[in-house]
Amino acid sequence: MSHFVAVDLSHASRLINHGPTVLVTSAHGGRANVMAAAWSMPVEFTPPRIAIVIDKKTCTRELIAASGAFGVCLPGTTLIDLTYAVGSTSGREVDKFERHGIRTRPGPVLGVPLIESGCAAWLECRWLPEPRAEDLYDTCFAEVVAAAADPRIFSEGHWTFRDDNAELQTIHHLGGGNFVCAGGTRKAAALP
Amino acid sequence: MSHFVAVDLSHASRLINHGPTVLVTSAHGGRANVMAAAWSMPVEFTPPRIAIVIDKKTCTRELIAASGAFGVCLPGTTLIDLTYAVGSTSGREVDKFERHGIRTRPGPVLGVPLIESGCAAWLECRWLPEPRAEDLYDTCFAEVVAAAADPRIFSEGHWTFRDDNAELQTIHHLGGGNFVCAGGTRKAAALP
Repeated sequence: MSHFVAVDLSHASRLINHGPTVLVTSAHGGRANVMAAAWSMPVEFTPPRIAIVIDKKTCTRELIAASGAFGVCLPGTTLIDLTYAVGSTSGREVDKFERHGIRTRPGPVLGVPLIESGCAAWLECRWLPEPRAEDLYDTCFAEVVAAAADPRIFSEGHWTFRDDNAELQTIHHLGGGNFVCAGGTRKAAALP
Repeated sequence: MSHFVAVDLSHASRLINHGPTVLVTSAHGGRANVMAAAWSMPVEFTPPRIAIVIDKKTCTRELIAASGAFGVCLPGTTLIDLTYAVGSTSGREVDKFERHGIRTRPGPVLGVPLIESGCAAWLECRWLPEPRAEDLYDTCFAEVVAAAADPRIFSEGHWTFRDDNAELQTIHHLGGGNFVCAGGTRKAAALP
């Protein structure tokens, strides 16, 4: 039983609007993989579309090309070590789900394996093949077909970062295993 | 006289690796503009290349197409209101530099107007035309040809977020004028 709540697709871009580091999940023909990605962004609100950089040599790219789908899961602060670990090993050498005891549930639309425990949210994505961007820039485009979040930190289309949900707050990779965690929230005031 | 220090191009991707919201600057033929962009990411370490979403209807897209260049400046927390303001108005209606008293200096390679006061860093970028990605996804690619940072927060290729440089820490737009500020830094530990 999931504790996540569906996110309206019109709000899906907000899940990654602030640049969190994410876990990319994929599966095909009995194989599955998870990797970390610091380089992703929304590209469109409606329909919700994203771009994400996934090296063409990775096992993940192979699984995405075969299945036409992938998941984007947002790890909270308790998953910093796990995020770095799955970003430093290849799915060709090890079953990372088994090695780290990561549980998944199938996405509602495409059946992509999605991680909820320790995560703030996920987006289930349908790959939009763009050979040139993929070849030249390792940039993959996708449409978000379902999204859900832990309502303790994201509900009704809005993030709420509080002291009592610090463990679910997003992490942002600076490089070399150093992450900056989401801090205080500030509301912009109107300028004259 | 600039207080910024040049960032080695091999470290340029680290400036936006953690997903900050940025200011995009551009100029051509006596016109100049600045807009906010939450959607950007590195796509390559070497040569340093980035992708950034800039709506095809914007004045900035017109200036980039005409000049072949743009700047990416990273506002610190004191520029939250300014960032939201320049993201909510069009350069076709107002000279945002004049309206908000924003000073710029020319980039060392392409002469792009760059903002340093209140910013943590900038990247001077040469546009890499990609008509399909631009048309379908408003996604523009570019190569970073120069970069510099305030050494109080980024030096020798590394960010340092401390209490005494909070004003320079990057801001990350959640949507609707709500920003999350860079918080505590955490180092990932190796997992078995």
